This record gives sequence, structure tokens and C-alpha cells, in this order.
Amino acid sequence: MSALAEKPPTKYGVVVFPGFQALDVFGPVDALNNYSQTAPLEFALLAATMDPVSTKLAQPGAIGQSVVPTHTFDDCPDLEVLLVPGGVGNRDPAVRAPIVEFLKRIYPKLRFLLTVCTGSVIVAESGLLDGRRATSNKRSWDWAISQGPNVQWVRQARWVVDGNIWTSSGVSAGIDLMFAFIKDQYGEETSKRLADKAEYVRNPDSGVDPFA
Amino acid sequence: MSALAEKPPTKYGVVVFPGFQALDVFGPVDALNNYSQTAPLEFALLAATMDPVSTKLAQPGAIGQSVVPTHTFDDCPDLEVLLVPGGVGNRDPAVRAPIVEFLKRIYPKLRFLLTVCTGSVIVAESGLLDGRRATSNKRSWDWAISQGPNVQWVRQARWVVDGNIWTSSGVSAGIDLMFAFIKDQYGEETSKRLADKAEYVRNPDSGVDPFA
Repeated sequence: MSALAEKPPTKYGVVVFPGFQALDVFGPVDALNNYSQTAPLEFALLAATMDPVSTKLAQPGAIGQSVVPTHTFDDCPDLEVLLVPGGVGNRDPAVRAPIVEFLKRIYPKLRFLLTVCTGSVIVAESGLLDGRRATSNKRSWDWAISQGPNVQWVRQARWVVDGNIWTSSGVSAGIDLMFAFIKDQYGEETSKRLADKAEYVRNPDSGVDPFA
Repeated sequence: MSALAEKPPTKYGVVVFPGFQALDVFGPVDALNNYSQTAPLEFALLAATMDPVSTKLAQPGAIGQSVVPTHTFDDCPDLEVLLVPGGVGNRDPAVRAPIVEFLKRIYPKLRFLLTVCTGSVIVAESGLLDGRRATSNKRSWDWAISQGPNVQWVRQARWVVDGNIWTSSGVSAGIDLMFAFIKDQYGEETSKRLADKAEYVRNPDSGVDPFA
């Protein structure tokens, strides 16, 4: 990783699936939305089909919100950065299968792969984290690491960078991961400006993890 | 406000409009989504029409995401709590007008009205904050307070409670507001459990505002 990338990325994609965690997506993505107000970006919200995708669980009384995909996994535009969120929906093998397939296919074309929460579990299942250091949700830790026996799981970490794969801890940790990624790619000034705009106090140290 | 409300609310609504700030909505709402996994809630995403609503600004290169409303302002179900987010889309009087109209109509039926960021500006325009203490986004502070000359604006505040209206500072402050509201209505144990689940370090003191 360079302190300032020679050519910062401008093409982002985010995976969604039924039962994704809303903040895993909209924490990091809100920072990108704000960034794009001063420097152009391209963005794709990717799902198995073009139908709206809900955060809602199939559980009586559970509430959720639906988002509209812009592309399917089979119709993915050129991307430089892909973000995979978590959410208990990914416990369903039928939900994970098309994402795992997509990850195997798209990863060689990506510059960076980012995960939030149990998004790392789907990436682990794809084999892309084998032999790499990574982290995941701390509340689902035992389950998460059991899904990736060949991953060097790091428990005490707000986020972990190994090569071009950035993995974060649970839910709100994705916001810190994104501000760290923005710092790495666009510089500290931009990261601070965007965090201040969101009135967000960054956790700037990947090793500081109050939830480990 | 009581430390533990006698009958905690279960019916929530959130307003969206073109150019709303994604994290203003999905920070607080993610906590409600998680709460609903153990205790039933009802939820309405309210907009002027049933068309998908984008966070995107009409600006070249700006990116955004679209959400699907569940109800229109004219077809609003029974609500106990309404949350109004901010976002630069609300600088457009044509965007604000139907929301102001809706707020005037719905407020007498609500138990609580919550705002995030410049959501308080729309509520101020409705007159509901006249004579009340309230806060808003600190980056748009001068504009915000100019829109509500009869409001007792409080600059140094992560959030402010006056009667049954809770207003927060910018963007991520909405997460702290929601965890404070959850603490007030459902108890500290529930607030802490949900914050821990999101691996979120709460700002528990409404007067602590690093961005004032």
C-alpha cells in the first residue's frame, strides 16, 4: 500500500444480498457519496438479480429497507474496488453461492477487495483469503473463522490489510476501514475532510479494537 | 423523558427525499433493524411518491444509491416515532414543501420526532421547533440556523432533546442520537447490547461535540 496511490481508484462496486447489514454498506458508501461531490466516481450496486434487495430477515416482526441494484453479478461493469458487506443473510448457502462465484470471477480484475463484518466469510469461502491475514465480526467470531480454516484470522483488529484485500471487523468498523482506505488512496487531508463532513471521529489505528 | 418509557414505541417511520444523506438514515435505522430481531417493530419508509428515492445529487460524477419507499406521505400508517434525515437535497424548496406539509399534519399524532443533520431545518421550517432548543449540522450551521430564526439553536451539542423532539448534529451524530433514544425508551442494557453488536463506540454525552 502506498501512502498516496499513483492513480487513485474511481470505479467502485458494492455487493448486496437479502439480509445484508444496512450500515455495513451505507457507512462506507456514504463517505464515497460525499467524495463524489468534489471528484467524479462511478458506482455499481450489484446483486444476483435486478429486483430490490432488502436488509430484512424472514422473521416475524423484523423490519428492513430495500435498495435498488444497478447491475447484476452477470452484468458487472469495470470495477477497481469491490466492497462485500456482511449481514446474517449470508448464513444461507443459497445466498452465498452466487456471490462466491462472482468473487472468483471478478477478483483477478480488481485492484482492491474490501469487506465489512462477515463479508470476509464469503470471501474466505471463495478461497481468496487462503494464507492471508484477515478479520471479521467479533460477535460472530467463532462461526466466522470456522468458515475459513486456511485464513490467518486476526482477532484484535479494527481492520486488516493483506495485499490488496482489506477486511474490517463488525458493522461500524467498515466506516473506519473506508476512511483508512480513503487516506491510503486519496491522502489524509481528503480522509479528514470527509470524516469532518460526516462529524465522524475516526478510529485511525487498525490495531485498536474495543470489541475483540 | 423517562429513563425507561412505560410503553416503548414500536411504530417507526423515516422520511426520504432526493439527495438525502445515506448515513443519516441508515446509521439510526440499522440499530432499529437489529432491535427488531429480538422485539417486533413496524417500519415505514416515507416519500412523496412510491418511486425509488436516490441519495444522488444532480451533479456530474456524483454517485448515489436508491431506496424503495413503503408508503407515501399521503398514505402514512400509524406512527409513534418519525425520523427526518438531512442531506443537501433539502436545500431545494420543492423538495422541502411536501415534507413540511406532512410534518405539520403528522406531528400531533406522533409520540416522538427525531432529526439528523439538516433534518432539523425542515422541521424548523414547519414551525414545530419555534421556541424550542435544537441542533443541526455544524458544517452547514450558518445556513441551518438562518432557516429557523425562532429556534433556540444549540451549537455545542451532539444532540438536543426538547420535549418530544430530538435533534442531532451532522450525519454520524444520528447514530449517537438513536442509541440515546433507545437507552431512554428501552433501557441502557438494550442500547449497549445493540451498540456492541454494531461494534460501535457510543458518544453517551449529548454535550460532547468535537465538531462544534
